[in-house]
Amino acid sequence: MGLDRVLDRIDADVPKALERLFALIRIPSISTDSAYAKDVVACAAALKADVDSLGFQTTIHPTAGHPVVVAHRPKTGAPHVLFYGHYDVQPVDPEALWTEPPFAPSVKEIAPGRKVITGRGSADDKGQVMTFIEACRAFLATTGDLPVGVTLLIEGEEESGSPNLPAFVETHRKQLQADIGLVCDTGMWDADTPAITTSLRGLVYQEIVVRCADRDLHSGLYGGAAANPAHVLARIITSLHDRNGRVRIPGFYKGVTNPPAAQLANWKSLGLTEAEFLGPIGLKHSVGEKGRELIEHIQSRPTCDVNGIWGGYTGEGAKTVIAAEARAKISFRLVGQQDPKAIAKAFAAYVKRQVPKDCSVEVIPMKGSRAFEVDYNAPAIAAARTALRQEWGREAAAIGSGGSIPIVGDFKRILGLDCVMVGFGLEDDRVHSPNEKYDLKSFQKGTRSWARILDALARMKPAKEPAR
Amino acid sequence: MGLDRVLDRIDADVPKALERLFALIRIPSISTDSAYAKDVVACAAALKADVDSLGFQTTIHPTAGHPVVVAHRPKTGAPHVLFYGHYDVQPVDPEALWTEPPFAPSVKEIAPGRKVITGRGSADDKGQVMTFIEACRAFLATTGDLPVGVTLLIEGEEESGSPNLPAFVETHRKQLQADIGLVCDTGMWDADTPAITTSLRGLVYQEIVVRCADRDLHSGLYGGAAANPAHVLARIITSLHDRNGRVRIPGFYKGVTNPPAAQLANWKSLGLTEAEFLGPIGLKHSVGEKGRELIEHIQSRPTCDVNGIWGGYTGEGAKTVIAAEARAKISFRLVGQQDPKAIAKAFAAYVKRQVPKDCSVEVIPMKGSRAFEVDYNAPAIAAARTALRQEWGREAAAIGSGGSIPIVGDFKRILGLDCVMVGFGLEDDRVHSPNEKYDLKSFQKGTRSWARILDALARMKPAKEPAR
Repeated sequence: MGLDRVLDRIDADVPKALERLFALIRIPSISTDSAYAKDVVACAAALKADVDSLGFQTTIHPTAGHPVVVAHRPKTGAPHVLFYGHYDVQPVDPEALWTEPPFAPSVKEIAPGRKVITGRGSADDKGQVMTFIEACRAFLATTGDLPVGVTLLIEGEEESGSPNLPAFVETHRKQLQADIGLVCDTGMWDADTPAITTSLRGLVYQEIVVRCADRDLHSGLYGGAAANPAHVLARIITSLHDRNGRVRIPGFYKGVTNPPAAQLANWKSLGLTEAEFLGPIGLKHSVGEKGRELIEHIQSRPTCDVNGIWGGYTGEGAKTVIAAEARAKISFRLVGQQDPKAIAKAFAAYVKRQVPKDCSVEVIPMKGSRAFEVDYNAPAIAAARTALRQEWGREAAAIGSGGSIPIVGDFKRILGLDCVMVGFGLEDDRVHSPNEKYDLKSFQKGTRSWARILDALARMKPAKEPAR
Repeated sequence: MGLDRVLDRIDADVPKALERLFALIRIPSISTDSAYAKDVVACAAALKADVDSLGFQTTIHPTAGHPVVVAHRPKTGAPHVLFYGHYDVQPVDPEALWTEPPFAPSVKEIAPGRKVITGRGSADDKGQVMTFIEACRAFLATTGDLPVGVTLLIEGEEESGSPNLPAFVETHRKQLQADIGLVCDTGMWDADTPAITTSLRGLVYQEIVVRCADRDLHSGLYGGAAANPAHVLARIITSLHDRNGRVRIPGFYKGVTNPPAAQLANWKSLGLTEAEFLGPIGLKHSVGEKGRELIEHIQSRPTCDVNGIWGGYTGEGAKTVIAAEARAKISFRLVGQQDPKAIAKAFAAYVKRQVPKDCSVEVIPMKGSRAFEVDYNAPAIAAARTALRQEWGREAAAIGSGGSIPIVGDFKRILGLDCVMVGFGLEDDRVHSPNEKYDLKSFQKGTRSWARILDALARMKPAKEPAR
């Protein structure tokens, strides 16, 4: 069978595949620091050279920022996939904390039998991008062809917030047409369990400023009479949740639905316990809504968290001040059809109602984005689930992601494309931190996973279960 | 009558009295900055030279820090008073904000008919100290004697927290024996109403640290499940007051009593309104205990205020973090017989009971001092009230002070001495800030007030009302 030969080829080619990945990691393509602008360009060129050699038709597109690499390999009569990844990396400071140099990659055994690829970008996202390209390479080397048509879109500004990408996709919508989007910038459920990210929580992020007196006051003179904004702020924050952990803002849960039965069953099968999830961070009990499972708290239920709070004297020692103002940054993770604009408005109105006479509150909107959900029963997702189960010997977890991956929304909005988000990162990869690494197992079995997924997508049939 | 001649002499001598005060202000006796150590010594020497010339027996006592000036002028058969003040001053930075140079004093008309003495120390405390010395000078120039025996204790470390003063008083308790303490380091009720400070609120100051997870968390990953210390802290702060503005810590009000009827009547006669007290700081309504008058909120009721709060991300923009810990500085103003140790203990126990499972709270004690009250009906207070009424044409306000004046406690504890705290500072004197000033009226009528008080103390009789 063709696929078996492809998988064998992947295993045999690991040493050379590592060399190719190392060559990319050696280029310090830090997109946020203009001192590395030439390296970013060099990295795009290196990528182009590699995929050119695979028979892709590759173009480096300049943008107002860093270039986008687009490579085509169409296939008549087969589905066409659009693969997204990024070749830029995070800065490395503080560099002193790296035990291995960030741009001199190596394979290191960090525990008996556990080997990792070291270096900045090993996981985020050069290593992940190469799992897909190596899968293509193995198909081409073995069968002379790819099972599906492929377009690669590898950008160089993801770590800078992708400022030019939406406009680029808009301008190149015709060249980027495809049947399915594939994104490799997410993680596994755990080291043995693959995952498909089927939802991204939305976000409403606001700063509030409570003001009372028009200046800082001496608490010895005014204490007992003057309103204290820290007290008012505390009362507002306390009022955001009821005793059952539910958010009390009227209308907050509008658009929140329960996940489909199949997804709930998938989650249940994962058997996630509080000890497993919270134990590593020193906690034991989820504070989420009573009567819901932990997996719902972190996947399908909206949340509300104070991300920062400050006011008054915060230095050493004691200062008897009543501050003129106190501030908090408060954010909401959204799910389903929750409307960020409506929630921002309801939040502001709710907060203003909590403020006593003499005091005022200013609500400063900062960010707002809708949640995004992929249909768990969509044919491409079903194909990926099957492929991942075959590779890893267990059902893939269908998970939600807290971080935002804006390209998924752009692909949907501009290209009408649904995405399959599969990645092989692990929680301890330290992306964005010193000592980033990518497990060799993630790299090798990730490559094998993409080979299986491409094979499955070529033979994709509509799922029997109806879409929700 | 002798007193009238003394008062006339004071009025006539104002130009020369100003020159003497200016000479002191010109010496930058900043006690907190070792660069000015010689100036501090020079200021002590200048004071000694002046009071020596009045026939006091004066000694400059070195301490581990800056020297103390002690001057004696005993009088057989008369009461003896111990007068306290300080000759050191606050630093002047930011110097750029001074419209007049801080150490080149002048008289300046800041409003039609309102003249002020400019310069650092004009109010705090050189100007106030000189009101007393000038009163003595006028008695000596007019009658050749003082009506009472006088000891001056003028220290040079008040702005540094008087680190060496308690030990000095202890060591020199015999030389400092007196019948009454007089302190001139407080303020008027308003520009037309004198005040006697009869109570100092005590203080319990604590920092609390709420800890949940053992590290900062990404709210997109852990939000909805992980306990958030900012929420816990907000709940603790909210729980400190009930709906009626009362502190909810069990036992908090133990030792709090209502002021004596005469003091309440005195307060009532002041007719303080919320508009008067809170209007200048942009507020309208007192948040103190329901069913109590504003004057009680700021004078005789204990308080609880958050002085600082912080946790999580407080910089620009949005960061989706759940902090590992959140902190607050929380202080209580104490009155009557409230026990700072008992309250600190009750607070810690109360806070710990509010903390949910998985979280912890550390309570860090920072400061604790008892409230201090002078008997409103004590003979010396009654004498001062009479003298002030005669000078200002209205009843002196018997007020509490929020700031602490530790020497008052030291005099009581070490010397068994009750103090009369009278001062002529105004709220807009900007002590400790750029552009400190002292009203010329405060200086002149303050001097006259001390002359009347010394005269009254000489003829002091026990008050008819029994002590509480």
